[in-house]
Amino acid sequence: MSAGALRPRFGDYPVGAAIPPLVRTVTREQIAAYAEASGDRNPIHLDEEFARSVGLDGIIAHGLLSMAFLGTMLTEWLGDPAALRSLSVRFSGVVRPGDTLTCTGEVTAAEVVEGSGGRVGRLRLALTGVNQRGERVLSRGQAVVELPL
Amino acid sequence: MSAGALRPRFGDYPVGAAIPPLVRTVTREQIAAYAEASGDRNPIHLDEEFARSVGLDGIIAHGLLSMAFLGTMLTEWLGDPAALRSLSVRFSGVVRPGDTLTCTGEVTAAEVVEGSGGRVGRLRLALTGVNQRGERVLSRGQAVVELPL
Repeated sequence: MSAGALRPRFGDYPVGAAIPPLVRTVTREQIAAYAEASGDRNPIHLDEEFARSVGLDGIIAHGLLSMAFLGTMLTEWLGDPAALRSLSVRFSGVVRPGDTLTCTGEVTAAEVVEGSGGRVGRLRLALTGVNQRGERVLSRGQAVVELPL
Repeated sequence: MSAGALRPRFGDYPVGAAIPPLVRTVTREQIAAYAEASGDRNPIHLDEEFARSVGLDGIIAHGLLSMAFLGTMLTEWLGDPAALRSLSVRFSGVVRPGDTLTCTGEVTAAEVVEGSGGRVGRLRLALTGVNQRGERVLSRGQAVVELPL
């Protein structure tokens, strides 16, 4: 399965290489769409008044929406969603509508492995998500991806 | 910050305890909403004809949409989204519209730690996502959550 002609190749991503970053400003519409997709309709994500009533400065984004941006960075780069094998992240900060997240990834390990369809290159990446104030909202992110040799 | 009165308590979840499962049937609307939220508009998630043209049986869900269901299971149980500290998962199978996912979680470790606001209970959970044929679509899932004592 391949969705694009320009898939990255293993040899172009040695340890230390960065992948194309993704920069997104979080909107209320995205938060509402994420609530719809996930079924997580906790009013602290959707209802300004409710959020204030529980001591917040207003609605906050779902942590997993930030994680979704990491996923989008990876799958846009990979071309093939099946190439993303695993993802992990620590939620380390609150994200509000209007915040701009910068997601980055860097190769920390690279090896050739025997896949179901022959030999493939497996990369381990360290990932981060940082807001416009330089605060890490996602930390200790890790992904494993598989690329053609 | 607390969004609900009925938050689970540390003492009620010893090692081996299960958390309330979440069962969801994936719809095309959820996939479209996830594309909107994440910005991942790869046509293999949205365009039936395109998906067939690249050898699939039709559109597939984003892997992170399945992960979103795990997140929803956790935050609905926790009440407070800030209680979810980390999440990791391995993508092990394709999810299509109409598939029903059952997400489950079980406590694998429990300890009392010093949090920023005093002592809290920290649980490590093993998570899985299984489709209606019993196939694991998410495997080796892990989460760390913090509960009041």
